[in-house]
Amino acid sequence: MTLMTDPQNLNAYMADIGRSAKAAANELRLASSDTKAKALNAMAKYIHEDRAFIEAENLRDMQAARKKALSEAMLDRLALNEARIENIASGLKAIAALPDPVGAVEKDWVQPNGLKFSKVKTPIGVIGMIYESRPNVTADAGALSVKSGNACVLRGGSESINSNRAIHASLVKGLEEVGLPATAIQLINTTDRDAVGLLLGGLGNTVDLIIPRGGKNLIARVQKDARIPVLAHLEGLCHSYIHHAADRSKALDIVENAKMRRTGVCGSTETVLIDPEIAGSILPDLSNRLTSLGCELRGDVQACRIIPTIEPASESDFATEHLAPILNVAIVNNIDGALQHIAKYGSGHTDAIITEDAKAADKFLSEVDSAICIHNASTQFADGGEFGFGAEIGIATGRLHARGPVGAEHLTTYKYQLRGTGQIRPK
Amino acid sequence: MTLMTDPQNLNAYMADIGRSAKAAANELRLASSDTKAKALNAMAKYIHEDRAFIEAENLRDMQAARKKALSEAMLDRLALNEARIENIASGLKAIAALPDPVGAVEKDWVQPNGLKFSKVKTPIGVIGMIYESRPNVTADAGALSVKSGNACVLRGGSESINSNRAIHASLVKGLEEVGLPATAIQLINTTDRDAVGLLLGGLGNTVDLIIPRGGKNLIARVQKDARIPVLAHLEGLCHSYIHHAADRSKALDIVENAKMRRTGVCGSTETVLIDPEIAGSILPDLSNRLTSLGCELRGDVQACRIIPTIEPASESDFATEHLAPILNVAIVNNIDGALQHIAKYGSGHTDAIITEDAKAADKFLSEVDSAICIHNASTQFADGGEFGFGAEIGIATGRLHARGPVGAEHLTTYKYQLRGTGQIRPK
Repeated sequence: MTLMTDPQNLNAYMADIGRSAKAAANELRLASSDTKAKALNAMAKYIHEDRAFIEAENLRDMQAARKKALSEAMLDRLALNEARIENIASGLKAIAALPDPVGAVEKDWVQPNGLKFSKVKTPIGVIGMIYESRPNVTADAGALSVKSGNACVLRGGSESINSNRAIHASLVKGLEEVGLPATAIQLINTTDRDAVGLLLGGLGNTVDLIIPRGGKNLIARVQKDARIPVLAHLEGLCHSYIHHAADRSKALDIVENAKMRRTGVCGSTETVLIDPEIAGSILPDLSNRLTSLGCELRGDVQACRIIPTIEPASESDFATEHLAPILNVAIVNNIDGALQHIAKYGSGHTDAIITEDAKAADKFLSEVDSAICIHNASTQFADGGEFGFGAEIGIATGRLHARGPVGAEHLTTYKYQLRGTGQIRPK
Repeated sequence: MTLMTDPQNLNAYMADIGRSAKAAANELRLASSDTKAKALNAMAKYIHEDRAFIEAENLRDMQAARKKALSEAMLDRLALNEARIENIASGLKAIAALPDPVGAVEKDWVQPNGLKFSKVKTPIGVIGMIYESRPNVTADAGALSVKSGNACVLRGGSESINSNRAIHASLVKGLEEVGLPATAIQLINTTDRDAVGLLLGGLGNTVDLIIPRGGKNLIARVQKDARIPVLAHLEGLCHSYIHHAADRSKALDIVENAKMRRTGVCGSTETVLIDPEIAGSILPDLSNRLTSLGCELRGDVQACRIIPTIEPASESDFATEHLAPILNVAIVNNIDGALQHIAKYGSGHTDAIITEDAKAADKFLSEVDSAICIHNASTQFADGGEFGFGAEIGIATGRLHARGPVGAEHLTTYKYQLRGTGQIRPK
């Protein structure tokens, strides 16, 4: 269903969204912590009050999705029920309770001439979010933007447009209740795909940053077409490396959790790497535990020699984010072999070493070039909540601006404040 | 002069540069602080030893530039003499002496489950630099990249290619002396303009960041064509605002310095804004002082009423980075009028307030949305050296990754190191 199709109107509609977002950003930038927190709590209140309407609108999306025969996984991501809606509301309250990142002094110092310097966190401006299916992203993205003093322009998936509109309406009531501009959170109210292209063009220098959240095709399109900075979440091709000095029981518990706690999250381990000294003794136990949980193992030649019943892994298995109960197994020569495997196949997301050898752990944590490097814990800790960020808008796999979980504090830039007493600069 | 013209060769040549830069970046990333400092000191030694050769190669560029009738300003930027070459060498030594940003722990904390988190600065990878005329940028960019553990690919202006090649040769000797890869600093050894397009495309995902340094046309082309992140320095349209509670003598000294210390730098003030209460008494003195120094004033209607001999300023004057002894003058209603003028015409670079009223100063420093906000000091402090960064590669006017002066520490990203004792994540 396309709500707007006339391209001339679309251009005007999108330009207006950009202009009003920029104006709203100028108000949000100076809003007090208290006002922003009150807005977020009011949004939570309205999500709760409007839960029946949100659920009804979601039902319309679900019916349309079933007609289109979307996969069960997609349907599950799209579905809202009362518990999920209350979760959205409590998420908003949790963001309200977080410290305000804006105005925080990152650093201050005095130069010999007496000039005082402060590096202070400030909002970015206008953030464009492009996302798929999950309607809760509408609330998360809107709330994190407001918390960090930014305006946002949201473009959800066409399959969730009714759910998104309903959630968006509750958020806007919250903004209005505290006197913040309703245009601080705007939802692009059309499923016309050209709207995405316009948003990626920056809407006439009004949008400062694009955050895409979705599958590979979406990210690829955004990276190809964006004319403004992008904070992208590519994929999580995560590794757990069992070093020869690993504690067997920790290794088994950690790898089981890293793979099987949830197989569809980006922090789930796709490949386990094992040192040869320990492979013969640990791989059979690991295989038994994971197989009994419904996980399929795919091994390299050496792993298949140890357990001949394992499926052989292809080269492409090691390069695949399975997001499914499938675990690749490779026997590496040593820690350098593990680092090489990760450098070749990893996505720079999250990689872990399991060892009791502190020196090996330090080497791994310093040499593996990933956003999140872990010693003796599950890769499934790759999550903003587990970092203490309260909520996240995604996990950035690029290397500029923000890397790893992106919370409210990462949706800021900074400025320098210099305080003098009449200093002039010598020739 | 084009050194390479066959496009097929150019593609292969550039792809090879990207591959070898990426490989070098993997070595640089893990190089010790000591090795990097030794490399930088060795580069300084070779710049000094090779000074006659560098000067001779620069002379070739100067002769070609004179034939092309480049402007005196361009010729001055291009010219090297012994003193300037020794300055390049001492700049390298100063960068060697700076603290190593890589490995610095920005933050660490422990979560309730006992997981220990550290946020650690790491290199970005491969940095592409595109710059014009000044040959010293070859050394500055190469040195700041090495200091921050990055490899770099340098593309200088065609008018300075012989100077850049000579300086580059000395830098490479320094890398080789300490066993770092010669390809850690590569100079694109062709003036073929297609090389820029290939670099902006990222050379097959090997280049992580582009930093352009030059005029408006260069920056515009980079922002249009780049398919990878850009750290751009646009223009410095800086303001000094004389608040009604300003100290007269400070105001005169600061504005004189902010405009006239050097008129060609990005931190020079282009427009002075004055409160009406103080305009009648201070503008005549300001006009006399600046006029006697050869500065032309261009005023808005109210300023021209106070001093009828001032040239009237056009709308476009207020939007122009003069980079010349020309000062726009506008009388604003009050601090909000000053903030509105800056929001309308400024470039988000550097803006100052001159006042003895602390509340007005705080309001200005918090509300003006510029990278550098100054109270009672000259806008010409907009310089990495004056911030204590030791050296800068430019002043970023964008809002993502780095803002304001870009020194070695801003050429880094970060990663999270998590240290556990077997933690797994609950369902």
